[in-house]
Amino acid sequence: MISIALDALGGDFAPDVVIDGAIKAVNGSDGTFNIVLCGPKADVEAKLKQFGYQGNAISVVDAPDPVAMDEHPTDVLRKKQHSGLVTCVALQKKGLVQASVSAGNSGAMMASCLMILGRTSENFARPPIGCIVPTASGSSILVDAGANVDEKPLVLKDFALAGSVFAECHLGIKNPKVGLLNMGEEEKKGPVAVQEAHQLLKTAPINFIGNIEGRDVVLGKADVIVCSGYVGNVVLKMLEGFYELHQKMFGKIDTPAGKKFDEMWDYRTAGGALLLGLKGTGIIAHGRSDAKAIEQAVKVAYTFAANNVPQKVGEKLAGIQ
Amino acid sequence: MISIALDALGGDFAPDVVIDGAIKAVNGSDGTFNIVLCGPKADVEAKLKQFGYQGNAISVVDAPDPVAMDEHPTDVLRKKQHSGLVTCVALQKKGLVQASVSAGNSGAMMASCLMILGRTSENFARPPIGCIVPTASGSSILVDAGANVDEKPLVLKDFALAGSVFAECHLGIKNPKVGLLNMGEEEKKGPVAVQEAHQLLKTAPINFIGNIEGRDVVLGKADVIVCSGYVGNVVLKMLEGFYELHQKMFGKIDTPAGKKFDEMWDYRTAGGALLLGLKGTGIIAHGRSDAKAIEQAVKVAYTFAANNVPQKVGEKLAGIQ
Repeated sequence: MISIALDALGGDFAPDVVIDGAIKAVNGSDGTFNIVLCGPKADVEAKLKQFGYQGNAISVVDAPDPVAMDEHPTDVLRKKQHSGLVTCVALQKKGLVQASVSAGNSGAMMASCLMILGRTSENFARPPIGCIVPTASGSSILVDAGANVDEKPLVLKDFALAGSVFAECHLGIKNPKVGLLNMGEEEKKGPVAVQEAHQLLKTAPINFIGNIEGRDVVLGKADVIVCSGYVGNVVLKMLEGFYELHQKMFGKIDTPAGKKFDEMWDYRTAGGALLLGLKGTGIIAHGRSDAKAIEQAVKVAYTFAANNVPQKVGEKLAGIQ
Repeated sequence: MISIALDALGGDFAPDVVIDGAIKAVNGSDGTFNIVLCGPKADVEAKLKQFGYQGNAISVVDAPDPVAMDEHPTDVLRKKQHSGLVTCVALQKKGLVQASVSAGNSGAMMASCLMILGRTSENFARPPIGCIVPTASGSSILVDAGANVDEKPLVLKDFALAGSVFAECHLGIKNPKVGLLNMGEEEKKGPVAVQEAHQLLKTAPINFIGNIEGRDVVLGKADVIVCSGYVGNVVLKMLEGFYELHQKMFGKIDTPAGKKFDEMWDYRTAGGALLLGLKGTGIIAHGRSDAKAIEQAVKVAYTFAANNVPQKVGEKLAGIQ
């Protein structure tokens, strides 16, 4: 039985949507996983009761400390060991759960996973967020979706390697096409770090298809989109914004295309992104998550944990580095 | 009478679409402007004949040198003085035309405008591309849309000033809301250069609304979106990609919302972006321009020149710098 730790106070609409989402997730799980809610025990239990939950697939671990969205990650690690966020990761380290999910402070979640779970390889300096994003032709892996900034070319190369093995292990794509996000196809275009990364990727053991542009991201030219965490975050949020704009302008379009668009482009169906290159499953869910997004994040965490995705990614990374 | 110089060999589908677009532009101009096509004279005249043009609103200046899309800007300036691109700008410097348009090598067009037309202020180090982009609520100015890379914080501040006065002079927005594109609302988020730019913008003589995210770009939270040319180019191309994806999935939607979306989001209606902070009107049209996009780029150039937008931007910039 797989257990998933969920930060009860993580996210803009916690704890209500987190607890609602947790209940929806276990109710639809056919008993394949349990959830351990980490948060202020009395409050969380009262909320579970309020939502009418009476099953035994959800337990609660007391973790009373709140974590603010703008709290510095190292401060959280040092001073908020009894927060839901840190407790989720600590339980995984102890082997009591197999995955940790938080929609809270993403920097703190990343730092906790990095410091508590550890990297799969010491060569792998800065774990990125690998996020599945919708495209015109299906989905791609965006890496880094926002864990890092000001990356050196070698770090961008690590992102490419991690994204490539993630696409292989998780999406089942053989020899995935890896594109470097830039402002033109030419090698000599773009910021210096991106130009240097281009040169490194040419000889890396991946299927590097060269630079791609913003248009190619949306149209799905690459299976793996490599970029700085800053740019990746802009890309991810624009994809979300586009879905919202579309909903606003057109509402629900009741055609096969409309249904496909809703299925693929609603950010809530992605359900959260995986930190790559770590010894364990750390899922960063969206701060704006509603209950459906939390439910989906837990399901995604289950898939990663059940399929040993982090371990497979780690082994493959060690093999090609 | 305003004359507009148009690079006959600029763009992926030149010269055919350029000449077709030029004819469409003058036919719809009510005689308000002329076009001077700069390119290999015999070829251009033959094409004009082939397209059946018999009016006198289009003239041709011989400029036989071709410019490749990946040719280095300074090489173009040094070795390709008889190219359509450089000739367009040189004619403006001489006062023979009031605006220059090219869909060719954008780096070369920028360098030519910078070196030949000159900056409005010596304090203004790196002229950005100001581009009108569609949002959920109307349009915003994206600055820089791809002229620069690896900008220092002071350069990002210049972009904000230029974007703000451009929004005022061209879109008529009083006290436009200026947002800094980042990966979170918090001041301490993002690349170091962006964090430092944030501090500079707080005391700049503009209506700075703080950091905005990718979602806010699409939803239209700011009138002016300030970012590095690299990121701006990714943003611009993603907006184009969204429109293409939408066309692919849904085709033409025959409702008021569908028509509005087509009008606003079809990249061809934007018609080209203005280089800001220069003594003159240099328009960079899209490399993939078709005849409709070229027609629109010429019309946009006319609007800028007729309304003295570059001069107004220059005066306002000088006033607040």
